Amino acid sequence: MISVGLDIGSVAAKGVMLAGNNKFQAVLPTGWSPREAGKNIVKTLLDISGFSRSDIDRIVVTGYGRVALTEAYKAVTEITCHARGIAELYPEVRTIIDIGGQDSKVIRINEKGRVIDFAMNDKCAAGTGRFLQVMANTLGLDVSELAENEDQSQITAINSMCTVFAESEIVSLMARGVSKGGIIAGIHQSVARRVAGMVKRVGLQEKVAFTGGVALNAGVRNALRRELGIDIIVPEVCQFTGALGAALLAREA
Amino acid sequence: MISVGLDIGSVAAKGVMLAGNNKFQAVLPTGWSPREAGKNIVKTLLDISGFSRSDIDRIVVTGYGRVALTEAYKAVTEITCHARGIAELYPEVRTIIDIGGQDSKVIRINEKGRVIDFAMNDKCAAGTGRFLQVMANTLGLDVSELAENEDQSQITAINSMCTVFAESEIVSLMARGVSKGGIIAGIHQSVARRVAGMVKRVGLQEKVAFTGGVALNAGVRNALRRELGIDIIVPEVCQFTGALGAALLAREA
Ligand code: SF4
Repeated sequence: MISVGLDIGSVAAKGVMLAGNNKFQAVLPTGWSPREAGKNIVKTLLDISGFSRSDIDRIVVTGYGRVALTEAYKAVTEITCHARGIAELYPEVRTIIDIGGQDSKVIRINEKGRVIDFAMNDKCAAGTGRFLQVMANTLGLDVSELAENEDQSQITAINSMCTVFAESEIVSLMARGVSKGGIIAGIHQSVARRVAGMVKRVGLQEKVAFTGGVALNAGVRNALRRELGIDIIVPEVCQFTGALGAALLAREA
Repeated sequence: MISVGLDIGSVAAKGVMLAGNNKFQAVLPTGWSPREAGKNIVKTLLDISGFSRSDIDRIVVTGYGRVALTEAYKAVTEITCHARGIAELYPEVRTIIDIGGQDSKVIRINEKGRVIDFAMNDKCAAGTGRFLQVMANTLGLDVSELAENEDQSQITAINSMCTVFAESEIVSLMARGVSKGGIIAGIHQSVARRVAGMVKRVGLQEKVAFTGGVALNAGVRNALRRELGIDIIVPEVCQFTGALGAALLAREA
């Protein structure tokens, strides 16, 4: 049985292939075409595994770009796939925080990995990877450079929740000579606060896992620990939990 | 009796001087310092009127930047000042829509010009002048050039309410060769829809006046007429209604 899960996000396309006890994974930028990205991920998985297209029994696709691929593959919501992926990796997790490139979600699951409740923000860039991207750009950094330049000891709170207003706020903080590292710490705090508000709506139940591309950022991870006042689990494969869940659902279908 | 009203907005600082039956008005960019802007407006009003500082009996200041000037002047909220200004110009108005550089408000007033209810958005750039500014910038236009470049006949709806997501949407609409004039019509519609939602919360009661810097934009005016399904009054001095109200309150204090 060879199953593939694809998670076509707004920024990155992720894929996981399960072939018996072997697991292969690949990530590529989504670019302009979610459909092309999906095809390229499958191609990459075949290249690294040595299998051919006809060996794949089933493909499940999830994520923002899944609609573009529904003809060829079964589409499942990200919430279901994340829940399945996390339940496999960490059966003790009851709350999943997923911060992606342009949305954020908080998912409550039961001991069977079933989704009980969730909160989702995909209307407002605040509290998503997009907020970090805009802020990094304003600071003249790549989004991947934010965490390493953070200075927790000089944290400067960003008052505006709105990405657009926060951008102006940061420009004037810089003009006033406020430390860049402290501003970055404030940026991470802003994302954590927004998402902690969503956690409160769903109700905080331990253990908590943090997934999605933004979980790669150590500054946001720490800010989230502080805001929630508890430790959080960050899967090593935090970018791949959705794709893993999709692959498991493909295998189990 | 000589009274002055100042309305220090995020983008423009406006001033009105009432000296007997004479009215003088001035507008300047707020720039970095609301305090300096306030002083410069007073200086300009003195220059054009021929009076000197000691001739002024009272100054009332309103707007975003009013906090910076409270030592020297009496500060009054924008909502009260707008209500007073509009009630003077158009006693038949019951609903005031004010869209400024970084906020929007809907104010319900009674036949005496008293504020009965209001809705305000100063947390989210969508539905404010800031949204228009970001969109104009994305299109390579000055915000003052939006209306003249609009093409109502090819209106393209912008799906994202969020300024940040709408910006990406516009970039991809342009990449797909969608008419710029149609995109601009969609931008105006987006602002009008957001604000029409606020009008609905307060309750639509005629007549409706539209004030604030964004009322200078004919495209937003028309979009608002369409969204509300009624005609709206746009004061000739739409930028100055807050300052006029402040000057009247200074005279009556
Ligand atoms: S608050 Fe800012 S980031 Fe959020 S929807 Fe509004 S414009 Fe977008």
